[in-house]
Amino acid sequence: MPRLNHVIESQQFTLPLIHEVFQVADQMEKILDRGGTLDYQNKIMASLFYAPSTRTRFSFESAMYRLGGKVITTEQAHMFSSVIGGETLEDTIRVVSNFADVIVLRHTEIGAAKRASLVSKVPIINAGDGKGGQHPTQALLDLYTIYKELGYIDGLKVAFVGDLEQGRTVRSLAYLLGKFERVMLYFIAPDFLQIKEDIQDYLTRHNVWFTLENDLNKVISEVDVVYVTRIEKERFGDKIELYEKTVKNYFIDKDMLQKLKQRAIIMHPLPRLNEISIEVDDDPRAVYFKQTRNGLLVRMALLTMVL
Amino acid sequence: MPRLNHVIESQQFTLPLIHEVFQVADQMEKILDRGGTLDYQNKIMASLFYAPSTRTRFSFESAMYRLGGKVITTEQAHMFSSVIGGETLEDTIRVVSNFADVIVLRHTEIGAAKRASLVSKVPIINAGDGKGGQHPTQALLDLYTIYKELGYIDGLKVAFVGDLEQGRTVRSLAYLLGKFERVMLYFIAPDFLQIKEDIQDYLTRHNVWFTLENDLNKVISEVDVVYVTRIEKERFGDKIELYEKTVKNYFIDKDMLQKLKQRAIIMHPLPRLNEISIEVDDDPRAVYFKQTRNGLLVRMALLTMVL
Amino acid sequence: MPRLNHVIESQQFTLPLIHEVFQVADQMEKILDRGGTLDYQNKIMASLFYAPSTRTRFSFESAMYRLGGKVITTEQAHMFSSVIGGETLEDTIRVVSNFADVIVLRHTEIGAAKRASLVSKVPIINAGDGKGGQHPTQALLDLYTIYKELGYIDGLKVAFVGDLEQGRTVRSLAYLLGKFERVMLYFIAPDFLQIKEDIQDYLTRHNVWFTLENDLNKVISEVDVVYVTRIEKERFGDKIELYEKTVKNYFIDKDMLQKLKQRAIIMHPLPRLNEISIEVDDDPRAVYFKQTRNGLLVRMALLTMVL
Repeated sequence: MPRLNHVIESQQFTLPLIHEVFQVADQMEKILDRGGTLDYQNKIMASLFYAPSTRTRFSFESAMYRLGGKVITTEQAHMFSSVIGGETLEDTIRVVSNFADVIVLRHTEIGAAKRASLVSKVPIINAGDGKGGQHPTQALLDLYTIYKELGYIDGLKVAFVGDLEQGRTVRSLAYLLGKFERVMLYFIAPDFLQIKEDIQDYLTRHNVWFTLENDLNKVISEVDVVYVTRIEKERFGDKIELYEKTVKNYFIDKDMLQKLKQRAIIMHPLPRLNEISIEVDDDPRAVYFKQTRNGLLVRMALLTMVL
Repeated sequence: MPRLNHVIESQQFTLPLIHEVFQVADQMEKILDRGGTLDYQNKIMASLFYAPSTRTRFSFESAMYRLGGKVITTEQAHMFSSVIGGETLEDTIRVVSNFADVIVLRHTEIGAAKRASLVSKVPIINAGDGKGGQHPTQALLDLYTIYKELGYIDGLKVAFVGDLEQGRTVRSLAYLLGKFERVMLYFIAPDFLQIKEDIQDYLTRHNVWFTLENDLNKVISEVDVVYVTRIEKERFGDKIELYEKTVKNYFIDKDMLQKLKQRAIIMHPLPRLNEISIEVDDDPRAVYFKQTRNGLLVRMALLTMVL
Repeated sequence: MPRLNHVIESQQFTLPLIHEVFQVADQMEKILDRGGTLDYQNKIMASLFYAPSTRTRFSFESAMYRLGGKVITTEQAHMFSSVIGGETLEDTIRVVSNFADVIVLRHTEIGAAKRASLVSKVPIINAGDGKGGQHPTQALLDLYTIYKELGYIDGLKVAFVGDLEQGRTVRSLAYLLGKFERVMLYFIAPDFLQIKEDIQDYLTRHNVWFTLENDLNKVISEVDVVYVTRIEKERFGDKIELYEKTVKNYFIDKDMLQKLKQRAIIMHPLPRLNEISIEVDDDPRAVYFKQTRNGLLVRMALLTMVL
């Protein structure tokens, strides 16, 4: 197994390492089906969340428990610094790395996980650092879901739909997909929510085919994956009409489903607001709740790889 | 053991099922006296609390740990929906049921546990849903305490004292008691805090004898159980004098104790404010702290029955 | 092993008991190096924090997990009393002692741990009660660090630097040091932050040599231990200049280090604000992060001793 010290950013995952993660995740599924393992009974994971994200925290903690381990946890990690008035992240990490064998860090500042890894005595796993930062385990679980559902990634046509400008998951996943062969990416959003130029430049530099598009109807029948993201009302300020029109234009309902290939899949990082009709949930192509389970497997895999 | 899928409301507990719960709780006491078991080492319980209730949460989590299991926990479950702006309870349950083998749900809306059970892949246990909703495990632990302390339930005379209008525990317990033979219920409260008509109608329909009464002194010497509930100051607005008079009228102190039968018991769901004098605590008839321990046993029993 | 029922205050630790704690802590280090033990698998610790202190909580919880035990936890214990409107600490402790085998209590009121111990069915460990109260496990871990780093305590010269008036850790540690032979204590602070008279009186009564001093430069080269504490900005109100001058006067940097004995050590209870330059961190005499690890060992020792 390639040695994995910290999980900081998507960039560190080479193709061989990605495949290794997938293989270990496959093994984890067998362990999970047997009810878990007690192999890591002597290991402690610290959930160090500077901002609440119960979904992500539960996923990691469930993963650690399925491996037999223990968890110390806080969603109030900012209290380490703010109450008294300013301990550095570095000092906090030095302290907490005495208490745990691995630290899962959620932070509000871009680069926090990297900084933590430089002083930590134990592995750091980045569980999201900042709005425009990284969330590599989410990107890996998305990629793993595609791989598991469709069997391969090379040559796939993947549509990203919704608010692509802010979507951390879209940015990270686009990055990872760009490592595979002949992948084609469709960024489908109104102009003011389109994917940023830095990702476009990255894809261009790496010869990844992509296109920007406003109209979901034009491409829905062509693609293998539809990756839908939240469109947040607050992004529209007082332009309520524009918000409602945008939601409507990219709404996935039964009608939209009929245009989709039979073997395609619909993904969503959750939480879903009103981007996908609940009537879609029972369609076998709707895999967003499977993503949750795959997240558990990928996080179990990453924990075993760093421990 | 009768198959128990979810624990949603008192209504689902038939007499045979209630006796089954009591039997399993008795077994749990033996397990607890041995320090617990490791039988459920591979099981994870999620404490999903949309409102804080550390007492109830600790009771369930201690129960799960005594069974050898693991716990993932939040008292901030509303963050699942409110931060981003509105994930449904159903989506949250679908997600969390990937991470746990049983979900203990505390919610602010009546019927939330039922809704959760309809989409969950794992058992749901209702740990309270809404002020006028259900709290079935509390009702079962109250009933179990009566059964354990007095040896039987048929024919008992039970007085409910205090704020009976809002008391979720009183309502649920009255419901369960109504399933037993020849039980007599005394609802003792000022008129404006009396038990609501829906419970009265229910009892009438099921031929359960009951009476409404203002004066505790009139019945205290007759009854086998005195179930005291909190009288909250805020319920009285600026009528401070009325509040103080009401508290005084229903106050259980040593004088009141002397009127009570030797084999009777005094119960309280806790927290106690100023309804019972601390000088009563050492009286063997005061069983309110035993209720806490019985709650642990009943919750261990319910967990084993659904798992 | 001497029977230890509760850990309430420094005063209860006699010299033999202190040495016992040190010996058990040394054993714990061996257990920790092997990855921990599962001996306490059937034991539950309750972290009952009426005010958040993630650092202290993590230290105790990691200790309990390294012993194989389980943890139920809250940093919102004030909710036990405040939501409904006033359950006593005593009632809360009676309830929680049904759910756990040991209670670690952090409270905002002086004497809370003592009160808790009087009604608890299980051992209470004081994890800090009130600003001017006790934090005996911190004092023990500080003392253990000195003992472990320097090999002995009798005859040592210990300088306390910073805000000594409020420092709970300084007060408790001064108390414990006073039990050893020929110890010499230097309290180095501006007059308005000096150690209070109660501690001075205590030391005088017990024939412990001590001196009050403003200038760190005068004694830095003589002492074996420099115990630095936080100087909080808020203590200075709007006297920003005085704050900055004070911080500067007691700042430990490389220049200050050069005056320090080669075998001396620099301690800090953490969190550090700007009392010690990060350039000092790599100096072998800087032991403040070792204190964290020693805290884990001491808390493991205390847990095994009360359980």
